[in-house]
Amino acid sequence: MPTAIPADSVGLVSPKVVHFAEPLALACGRTLHDYQLIYETYGTLNASRSNAVLICHALSGHHHAAGYHSMDDRKPGWWDACIGPGKAIDTNRFFVVSLNNLGGCNGSTGPSSLNPKTGKPYGADFPVVTVEDWVHSQARLADMLEIQQWAAVVGGSLGGMQALQWSISYPERIRHCVAIASAPKLSAQNIAFNEVARQAILSDPEFHGGHFQEQGVIPRRGLMLARMVGHITYLSDDAMGTKFGRGLKSEKLNYDFNSVEFQVESYLRYQGEEFSSRFDANTYLLMTKALDYFDPAAAHGDDLAKTFASAKADFCVMSFTTDWRFSPERSQEIVNALMAARKNVCYLEIDAPQGHDAFLIPIPRYLQAFSSYMNRIVL
Amino acid sequence: MPTAIPADSVGLVSPKVVHFAEPLALACGRTLHDYQLIYETYGTLNASRSNAVLICHALSGHHHAAGYHSMDDRKPGWWDACIGPGKAIDTNRFFVVSLNNLGGCNGSTGPSSLNPKTGKPYGADFPVVTVEDWVHSQARLADMLEIQQWAAVVGGSLGGMQALQWSISYPERIRHCVAIASAPKLSAQNIAFNEVARQAILSDPEFHGGHFQEQGVIPRRGLMLARMVGHITYLSDDAMGTKFGRGLKSEKLNYDFNSVEFQVESYLRYQGEEFSSRFDANTYLLMTKALDYFDPAAAHGDDLAKTFASAKADFCVMSFTTDWRFSPERSQEIVNALMAARKNVCYLEIDAPQGHDAFLIPIPRYLQAFSSYMNRIVL
Repeated sequence: MPTAIPADSVGLVSPKVVHFAEPLALACGRTLHDYQLIYETYGTLNASRSNAVLICHALSGHHHAAGYHSMDDRKPGWWDACIGPGKAIDTNRFFVVSLNNLGGCNGSTGPSSLNPKTGKPYGADFPVVTVEDWVHSQARLADMLEIQQWAAVVGGSLGGMQALQWSISYPERIRHCVAIASAPKLSAQNIAFNEVARQAILSDPEFHGGHFQEQGVIPRRGLMLARMVGHITYLSDDAMGTKFGRGLKSEKLNYDFNSVEFQVESYLRYQGEEFSSRFDANTYLLMTKALDYFDPAAAHGDDLAKTFASAKADFCVMSFTTDWRFSPERSQEIVNALMAARKNVCYLEIDAPQGHDAFLIPIPRYLQAFSSYMNRIVL
Repeated sequence: MPTAIPADSVGLVSPKVVHFAEPLALACGRTLHDYQLIYETYGTLNASRSNAVLICHALSGHHHAAGYHSMDDRKPGWWDACIGPGKAIDTNRFFVVSLNNLGGCNGSTGPSSLNPKTGKPYGADFPVVTVEDWVHSQARLADMLEIQQWAAVVGGSLGGMQALQWSISYPERIRHCVAIASAPKLSAQNIAFNEVARQAILSDPEFHGGHFQEQGVIPRRGLMLARMVGHITYLSDDAMGTKFGRGLKSEKLNYDFNSVEFQVESYLRYQGEEFSSRFDANTYLLMTKALDYFDPAAAHGDDLAKTFASAKADFCVMSFTTDWRFSPERSQEIVNALMAARKNVCYLEIDAPQGHDAFLIPIPRYLQAFSSYMNRIVL
């Protein structure tokens, strides 16, 4: 907990909730008739409403991207390293909007919300949502906030996919698209890891076909396994080596299955357990599916350049050398397509040992490049 | 099934079983008082008993490395690509011995064997076995076969670790050590993947603390998840991309959790299910632990060159470019240590898209190099 709010923090913030009654038709063919989105804002919208930046979150993210909810908070929002006065996304210049996506478990309508048709939690009956669906719902949030055009839409990983989709779905409504540690679509290996995570959840006896809430239980073991396997893919082999190596948990080996022998095992179990107590299993399934389905070029004959043909935004693409979940090559596919489509694109590959998680970490060269791009945005 | 046995096959083979009554002290501090090993042999032991080659298997391998058990066999032994008349391990020259390791589930004493003390299956009470323990048990098998010295000890992955350990534990009893797609110890990431697999098994309610056999059940879901995550690490991203890409299972997307959308999901589930019906969960735990614990340099101040100081064998180390489980860099660590220890070492990095599994696949350049090394061995 901060004894005093740091000077470069957005300070104490409170989320807001907005209800939408206009039905939202989803890619899966189903319709959400009524839903709410939870969001936070940092900074001040200028008179011409031209300084708004939308933050899109990744798999396990949410609306609380910066600042503190109370003086008792142990940690600030998840992207506090990049959002605040004088930071890369400078709240002295920008009005920042950060939401929890539909299907989430942090306050926007999702599987743990009550289904108005049944009066019970949606659970597994919540419709599958896609990156496109999210972007449409975010456009409605922009309408509600009377933001006709975002100065920038920014995201890392799955958040970067949303930023890219904005440039395709709403070319007139986005001036800059910033996609960090992202990819134009998942590879077979990416899908395979997601599938292991899903099977871990689906096969947990406490999952109850997705209606565990009604049974008063949570599929804790499944969620833990899903997070453990996910977590390995967020870190680089190098980073794990530096952090844990083959360090032992106790002084000598125990030679059994139940003891924790290596520090890395202990770390992973802790990460898995902590996650399973705070995240919704159905939301996890939905988020991995949104990742799997994202493939904007599919509707354009698998031609990514053609997919971006109508985009009007300028683009900033960043990747990290040791990211093996979405490697620099995946970002380069985006950059190559944008160049082929004759768009303005700026690309930076950051030398960083942290793997995919690097986009969340205050790496000096990354912050500098990010700031420098954002500061050049004309308001 | 072969309509006729191929000319370059060792043909129809039968395993043999040998009992050992001399107690075997294990690294974990426990002792196996009585155990059996199942093994096969191919080719003929020469008069001077100088042409014997030991094959060491990897995580899910066993004694049946080449040939067919019957004319109805759908597939030959697991390393048939490399063992047979005229093949890399030429049975016209060599007498090949291939066993199932202690703790296995294919006929050697392991968790599914009866514990003489209780009259029930060992289950989780089977002691943890290490690569060193295996090598000691293999030395007893060599004694029984009156093989004083192996012309070569050969293995891929975990099998390569056993070959390396032979050169350290029994320097006088091995003339050539062939370690393919191996590593001198696991990295934190390697251990992390093993830990996910173990937790998947340990958390399966059907595991019953390792005594599932007595309950008449198997921890099918846990084993399936373990194999799925393992399988991803055996294949390269490229290989998965080429084989499956984002190919769909049916013509259009289903947008739900229970349907199989992508071919890669279907493949992984099949692999996992097939494995769970034929492999023992306790053996899987033991094998991953043997991998984790392998670290011969630990007893020599983490100095791998010093570890090999007393080795007398010549070494052949091979790796595959797209293997990210045990990358070429891991093989190079072995090679560098051997060179520092002034041993004869031959190293080849094979350009192959198949990832870790490449060591099982008849890749022309690999087979050629392997043959060429083995053919130069003086008998």
